[in-house]
Amino acid sequence: MASWLQIPKNSPFSLANIPFGIISAASSRVPAIAIGEYALNLNTFASSGGFAQLPAIQSHLSVFDQPTLNSFAALGRPVHRQVREYLQNVFRADTQFPQILKDNAALQKSALIPLSEVTNHVPMQIGDYTDFYAGLNHAYNIGVLFRGPDNALQPNYKHLPVAYHGRASSVVPSGTGLHRPQGQILVNPAANPKLPTFSPCKKLDIELELACFISKPNDLGKPVPIDEAEDHIFGLVLMNDWSARDIQAWEYVPLGPFNAKNFGTTITPWVVLIDALEPFRAAGLEPGNRDSLLPYLREKKAETSYEIPLEVEITNKGGQPTLISNSNARNLLYSFPQMVAHHTITGCNLNTGDLLGSGTISGTEPKTQGSLLEQTNGKNPLKLADGSERLFLEDGDTIILRGKAGTEGNYVGFGDCVGTILPPVQL
Amino acid sequence: MASWLQIPKNSPFSLANIPFGIISAASSRVPAIAIGEYALNLNTFASSGGFAQLPAIQSHLSVFDQPTLNSFAALGRPVHRQVREYLQNVFRADTQFPQILKDNAALQKSALIPLSEVTNHVPMQIGDYTDFYAGLNHAYNIGVLFRGPDNALQPNYKHLPVAYHGRASSVVPSGTGLHRPQGQILVNPAANPKLPTFSPCKKLDIELELACFISKPNDLGKPVPIDEAEDHIFGLVLMNDWSARDIQAWEYVPLGPFNAKNFGTTITPWVVLIDALEPFRAAGLEPGNRDSLLPYLREKKAETSYEIPLEVEITNKGGQPTLISNSNARNLLYSFPQMVAHHTITGCNLNTGDLLGSGTISGTEPKTQGSLLEQTNGKNPLKLADGSERLFLEDGDTIILRGKAGTEGNYVGFGDCVGTILPPVQL
Repeated sequence: MASWLQIPKNSPFSLANIPFGIISAASSRVPAIAIGEYALNLNTFASSGGFAQLPAIQSHLSVFDQPTLNSFAALGRPVHRQVREYLQNVFRADTQFPQILKDNAALQKSALIPLSEVTNHVPMQIGDYTDFYAGLNHAYNIGVLFRGPDNALQPNYKHLPVAYHGRASSVVPSGTGLHRPQGQILVNPAANPKLPTFSPCKKLDIELELACFISKPNDLGKPVPIDEAEDHIFGLVLMNDWSARDIQAWEYVPLGPFNAKNFGTTITPWVVLIDALEPFRAAGLEPGNRDSLLPYLREKKAETSYEIPLEVEITNKGGQPTLISNSNARNLLYSFPQMVAHHTITGCNLNTGDLLGSGTISGTEPKTQGSLLEQTNGKNPLKLADGSERLFLEDGDTIILRGKAGTEGNYVGFGDCVGTILPPVQL
Repeated sequence: MASWLQIPKNSPFSLANIPFGIISAASSRVPAIAIGEYALNLNTFASSGGFAQLPAIQSHLSVFDQPTLNSFAALGRPVHRQVREYLQNVFRADTQFPQILKDNAALQKSALIPLSEVTNHVPMQIGDYTDFYAGLNHAYNIGVLFRGPDNALQPNYKHLPVAYHGRASSVVPSGTGLHRPQGQILVNPAANPKLPTFSPCKKLDIELELACFISKPNDLGKPVPIDEAEDHIFGLVLMNDWSARDIQAWEYVPLGPFNAKNFGTTITPWVVLIDALEPFRAAGLEPGNRDSLLPYLREKKAETSYEIPLEVEITNKGGQPTLISNSNARNLLYSFPQMVAHHTITGCNLNTGDLLGSGTISGTEPKTQGSLLEQTNGKNPLKLADGSERLFLEDGDTIILRGKAGTEGNYVGFGDCVGTILPPVQL
C-alpha cells in the first residue's frame, strides 16, 4: 500500500498501522491517528466532513470530540475496523475518496500536524490497571535468582496467568520524567535483615512489557468466555513498568509489590489496534501448554501471540545511546485473550479503558532480557557506549523501548516509549 | 443537639453525623445527606435556595448537580466542614434559619425522602482502590495459622503499613448481591499440591474493614507529608473485602491476591466526614510503636485512630440473624494519615475519589475477629442461631457490617454494609 502522503520507510506508523491516540490541539485534547511523520486531528477531520464517505460512523461522530479514546473504543471492534480501513483508503495513493483529503489542501493544512509539534497524552481514561506476569523467561530468570533453577517457577505458573492489580493514577505517556522514588530499603540485608533505612531507591529497574486496552466492557458477575475475549481488546501499547527492586524486596511479603511500582508506569501514546496486528499472529511460548490448561483458558486458535521484535535502549546524560536488549512479543506464555478470560472468571468486571500489562518480555539468550536485574543480577555491570557501567539506573538515564512488526515501508509499530529518571525530590 | 426533625435515638445518622452520599432521584444521580430516617436531596435543596445563608458555597453550588461526590470532595476540608455545620444548623430545633427548611413545607416535601425509598450508589468515582493490612491482630492471627506464633508477623510489619493495589471496578454499594466466584483451587492440597481444579470457591470469607475516600489530590512526584495527610481525607465508610481463601491460597505467590479479591468489595454508601469523627479520636494499637517509625510515618498527634464499635452479623436464607463478631476501629496499628503518607512517599499520586481500605479489623478475644478464617480456622464451625454451622459462607448467606460511634441520640454511624452471596453463575 502506497500513500500520497510521504511516509518514511522506517516509520512505525505506515499505512498498514493507523494507531489512535490523544493529542493536544488548541486548549483541548482530541483524538488523532499517527501516520508517517504526522498526526491527523480526528476532531477537525470529522467536523470538516472527513468521514462523509463512511456512513456507519455518522451517528457516532461525537466520539471524536472527546478528550479520551474511551467513547471510540466502546463502539466495538467492527467499528474500529471500519474506521481504520476507511482512513487507510483516505491516505492511499489510489484513494477512492481523493476529495476528502488528498485533494483538499485546506483540510490537510488544518488537520495534519507534524508529530514533532504534537503533545501526546495517555489515550484512555484508565479505570483499573492490572499487570500480568506472562513472560515465562522473565519469571524463570527471576525465580533462578531467588530460588535456584530447580524451583524457579512457582507451581501455579503454568496453570494460570499470575497477575496483580497495579496503580492506574501514575500511568504516564512516553516522555514524562519520573523522579527516583524514595522509601524503605534494607541497605545491608546481610547484616541488618530487619531494620529498614529511608533512602532514595538504589536498585531502580525497568520492565519491557506490552499492554492492551479494553474496549468492550463486561458486567460484574459475567465472565468473558475465552473465545470471545479478543473482541474485548481495543489495541496494544508498549509499557515500561519501572520497578524499585530494593523497595520491593522489603515490602512485598505477603501481599505483593506496592510502592515498588506505584511511582510511575510509562506507555506509548498511540494505541495499535488489534486488527493492525492480525498479520503478525504467531504462537507464543510452549503452545503445547495450552492443552493442559483448564477449559476456561483453552483457546481454539493456536496463534494468539504476535511476532513483534522489541528492543531496549539506554541513553545516559551525555546522550550516547546503548542498545541493551532485543526481545520479541512471542516470549509470553499467555495471550491477552487468556488474561481477559482469567481476570473475569471470578465475575470481575472490566471497563472500557482498563489497561492489562503482559509482564516482562525476556528471551533466553544474553542481551534479550527485559529488565536490568536479569541482565546484571545486581553484580555484573553492563558496559555502556561511553564506557560507563550500570547495575541499575542512574539519575539522568533515559530508557527507550521500541517495537515494530512487519517490514520496511509497512511497519506496524508503537513508536518510542521514553522515560528519563530525575533526581529524588527534596522532602 | 436536638432537631425539629424526628430522629430515632438509635439512628446512625443523628444530627451529630451528616454523612454524604449519592442517591437516585428521578432519572439521575444526585448528592444527598442522611439524617435520621431521611435523605436530603442536595440538588433540590441547593437549587431551591437551601444554601442561601452560606455565602462560602455560593460559587460552588454546581457540585450538588453531579452524579458523584468527587467535585464536592475536591473543594477541601474547610468547605466540607462549613457545609456540614450549616446543615446541622438548618436541622437544629433552634435553627438560625427556620425559613430555609424547618418552616418550608414545600422544600421539605420535595427534598426530604424517606431512606426506605432511596436507592444508594457508590458515592465517588473511584480512580484507584488500595487495601492496606493495618489490622495488627488480623495479621497476627493469619500469621499464626500459616507460620505459627513465633513468626506470625513479617519483619516489615511494624515498620510500614503493608498494602496492595485492589480492584476499583467491582466496588459496589451495600445491598448488591454477589455471585460466588469461580476459579482455580486445590481441592485436596495434601494429596495434590500442584494440580488445580476449576470450581466455585469453597472458602468464601468476609473481611471487616474501614476505608477512607481521598478529597484533596497530590501531584505525581509530590509526597504528602504526614502532618498534612489528614486534610487529604474526605471521610470514612465501612467495607467488606470479600475474600476467596482457596483461590487466594493457590494464586497469591509471588505477587499477592488477585482473583481472590476482584469479584467484589462492598461499602456503605454514606461517607462519614472526617470532621464528624473528630470527637471519637483515640489511640490505635501500640501507640509506642510510632516512635520507632521512620520520620515520614511519625505523627505528631497521638490519637489518630477512632473509638468506633464495629460488629458483624450473618443472616442465613431463613432470615435468622446471628451476631458473630464485635470489634473496634482502634484495632489498627496504622492510621489513615499514615497510609496516605506511605502510599505517596514514592511520589505516587492520589486522586479525589481514591479509596484506601484499612485491612481487617480484629480484636484479640474470641468473637472479636473480622474474618471467618480467624474464627473457624476452616475447622471449628460457628454455630448460627438456627442451629446450622459455618466454616465459610454458604449461598444465600447475608453479611451485615455495622459501626457507630457515640451514644444514644447522638450516634455517628455508617449504616449497614450488607451483601448476600448468590449462587455461582452458569458458564
